Parts: sequence; C-alpha cells; structure tokens
Amino acid sequence: MHVVQTIEGFRKALDAERAQGRVVGLVPTMGALHDGHLSLLRRAGAECDVVAVTVFVNPLQFEHADDLASYPRDLAADAAMAAGAGVHHLFAPSAAEMHPGEMLTRVAVARLGDGMEGSCRPGHFEGVATVVTKLFAIAGACRAYFGEKDYQQLTVVRRLVSDLSFPVEVVACPTVRAPDGLALSSRNVHLSGAERAAAPVLHRALAAGAAAVERGESRPALVSLAMARIISQEPLATLEYAEVLEEDLRWRLLVAARIGNVRLIDNIEVQAP
Amino acid sequence: MHVVQTIEGFRKALDAERAQGRVVGLVPTMGALHDGHLSLLRRAGAECDVVAVTVFVNPLQFEHADDLASYPRDLAADAAMAAGAGVHHLFAPSAAEMHPGEMLTRVAVARLGDGMEGSCRPGHFEGVATVVTKLFAIAGACRAYFGEKDYQQLTVVRRLVSDLSFPVEVVACPTVRAPDGLALSSRNVHLSGAERAAAPVLHRALAAGAAAVERGESRPALVSLAMARIISQEPLATLEYAEVLEEDLRWRLLVAARIGNVRLIDNIEVQAP
Repeated sequence: MHVVQTIEGFRKALDAERAQGRVVGLVPTMGALHDGHLSLLRRAGAECDVVAVTVFVNPLQFEHADDLASYPRDLAADAAMAAGAGVHHLFAPSAAEMHPGEMLTRVAVARLGDGMEGSCRPGHFEGVATVVTKLFAIAGACRAYFGEKDYQQLTVVRRLVSDLSFPVEVVACPTVRAPDGLALSSRNVHLSGAERAAAPVLHRALAAGAAAVERGESRPALVSLAMARIISQEPLATLEYAEVLEEDLRWRLLVAARIGNVRLIDNIEVQAP
Repeated sequence: MHVVQTIEGFRKALDAERAQGRVVGLVPTMGALHDGHLSLLRRAGAECDVVAVTVFVNPLQFEHADDLASYPRDLAADAAMAAGAGVHHLFAPSAAEMHPGEMLTRVAVARLGDGMEGSCRPGHFEGVATVVTKLFAIAGACRAYFGEKDYQQLTVVRRLVSDLSFPVEVVACPTVRAPDGLALSSRNVHLSGAERAAAPVLHRALAAGAAAVERGESRPALVSLAMARIISQEPLATLEYAEVLEEDLRWRLLVAARIGNVRLIDNIEVQAP
C-alpha cells in the first residue's frame, strides 16, 4: 500500500492509475476505521480497479474545538486495516497540508443541509461540502463510496457532485451494525459500558417507526412521535430529533440522540405506506 | 474547431487531449468576444498545446434580470473569432445543460469578494466562484487564462483554486485598451457615441492616481480622492468607487463608474510609493 501525505503526490498517483485505464474507487474518511468503513473499502475493491482511502479529520466540519480534539485518531491502526482490505493508496495529509493558510473558500448546499444535523451542528455541512469538494478536486475522476449512516451528508454530497459536475459517481453503501443493532461509528469508542448497553435505543426507535409505517401509519408526525417515545424512555439518552423524510415511494426515518456525552445518529429506509 | 454543447462531451474532449500528453489552455468567457479575449486566446495558444474556450453567460453572477437579458450574445461571431485565433474546442452549453435543475450549491470566497464589485453587485462573486468551480470540475487539469481587467474576480478565482486544490494554474493577462485608454469590455457596445467619448475618463482617473503615487503621495485615501475627482468632473459619469489595494511593493488602483446606464470598471498596478 502506497501511503502519501501530499496533495500533489496523491493527485499524481491517481492520475497515473487512470492513465493505465484503471477506474479509481475513492473512500473519504476521517479515520478511526471500523467495520463500516471496511464494507466501503471492500465494495470499492469489488467494483473498481484501484482503491484509494483518504484519512483526514476535517476541522471545518466541527463546531466545537473539544469535539475536534477528542475525535479518535489512530493512523497506524487505520493503515493496517486499509492494507488488510487491499487498499492501494492511503492519503493521510496533515492539517497544514490541507489548509496551509486560512481557508477563505466555502461550499454550501442550500436546503439539504438545513434541519436535523444542520440544525444541531451549525456550519457542519458547509464544512463537509467544502472538504469533499477539495478532495474531489484533488482526486479527479472516480467512484466515491459513502455510508448511508450519514444520510443527510450523502444527500449533500450527491447534490454538490451533480450541481458542480464533478466527474464522480457517488455510491451509497448500507449502514453496518453491531449484532444488537447499534450502527458502527468512530464515536462509539467514547461510550462507557452502560452507555454502550443503552445505545441500541436509536435502532430500536427506528424499528418502532418502521413497524408503525408497516402497520399503515401514514402520518409522518405520528411516526416521528413513535420513534421519539422510544428514545425518551431510555434514561441515558437525550433525544435530538426523530424525523421522517418523504422521498417518492420510500420514506427515510432518521434519529439523533446523545447517549451520555456521545452524540449518535442513525437512519433506515422504509416503503412508504 | 470542435464545437461542443454538452458537459460530458467537453470533458471527454479535454481528457482525450491530456491522454495524448497535451497541456490544455482554458479561457472561460461569457462570449461577446473582443480583442481583450483574443489576447487571452493567443497567450493560451502560445503557452499550451491545445486551447479551449468556454462561452456561457452565467445567470448566477447577475443581480438584475435586465442586466442578464441585455448582456450581448453572438455565438456565431464568437465562434468565428475563436476559430480565427486557433482555438481547438469551443464549449457553448445552454443554460439548461449547465443548470438542469435548481442550483443549490454555492461557492463563496470570504473577504476577497467583499467591497468594490462585491458591494456594488451583491452575490456577484458567489455566482462567479460557483460557475468557475463548475467549469474547473468539468475541464480538469489545465492552465486557465483570466484578464486583469476584472481584477477582484482574478483574486477570487486564484484563491478558490488554491483553497480547493484544483489542478489549475491561473494565468493573469494584461488589460487590453483602445488607443484612447478605454479598457475593452463586452459592455462597451451599449455606449452611445457621447458615452463612448466620455468613457476613457476611467483610465484618465487611474492615470491621475498613478501620477499622484509617482509624485510620492503615500496616503491611499488621497490617491483615491484624486481618482474620484477626475471621474466626478465628467458630466456623463457617475462614480461608484475609486480604491487603492495595498499589496506589498505594488498598489492596485481600481475604479468603477456608470457612463449613462453602462457600468464600467478598470484598474492598473503601480509601484508603491
């Protein structure tokens, strides 16, 4: 596996792959790789000729300095996992390499980043859209793999690719869960034992919402209420939101909650009633 | 000359050129090509293996619908001039090709787009930055030629390329002027005979500012005042701004004025006093 820390080096490596006629699969991450990321890397490996993973904890998408500081980082473990998954290029730039001066440029996607995560984390999606635009400008033509766990992020990324005409095909990959339903997340390492035991309440809430829809509940507000009720019954959980996005024939159910001090999100898709 | 109207067709044409090892020179324009554009095309031709010009009147950078509607358009004349200048690829997309749906994504460059044109034309530089980002995402690696006449635009474009790490080298080209000093601009066609005769007042104002600096005037406010005074003495002119940007060892003098209903801008560089 080729480990590269400079923008120019990464760009040239991918240019050389494409010059050989190879399709590049790109997996942008913030590191702290887990089995969820692994599923993205494997899917990219199955569908592309060459796989590149980027590891960069993007300061632009963090509202609070302590959240940024405490975000888990372990490049050696990430490199080992990436190499084990057959990754060809690991791009791990320093903050100084990505932002040598003040970053004056911002990319924003109207509306899709409003509400839910956008309301709870002001500036978050502008930070995401900006770093993803920069990574796409560096990486060039590719298929880019994103997890459905960050569903709102996925809609923002899809839209900026389409609006700005990047030569990128965005591929959405299913959320990977622990056996008890907890969606895998780099933030899960911050959960205490009791909190970890409580954390599957997000998935139980989504399951309750899905069950309500399957029973024929067609009022989104009542589906949201059913999900919110489950989370509010868990003493260690503080609900942030429980929402329903109506998308043609499918509904997307989304929840966010704090378990202790750890903020978790999850979502599932159901057939519209 | 290859004329292409689709994003995919233009991208593929430039990919094929680069695959042959050729360096692409890109000249983004809004059409209504004049000798100023011609100087960009010739410079690109001298410095690159292949030249591509884009002709698209970008609605995002117009504040007023009537200004957008009255912006001069003549694709046949543009194509003839581009072919005569040895252009290889002319990209002339429709508005529907560039914006098939609502454009939710915006690119903004903080501070550099504030003041001057940014104050007089709210949203203008966000529109410029957004369309230039999209054109760079479509065109891929290239040298991109911009005129110094739109000096603030040049600083915005340079910064977004640097901040977002596009594989683009921005090349600034000197303003081309009529013998009486008027900077060439697509908007000049809207000037009446009397307005055309009055329009060189912008250049005379810059010359007066430069003369003041050469005489040792080191107070930017007094240099601005000297420029503003010249413009205010011209009955057909309405001053919008006269400013001095201090850039290390060089100062940039910039003016904007309406001559009748036609808004004109100009700037020159002088050695700092």
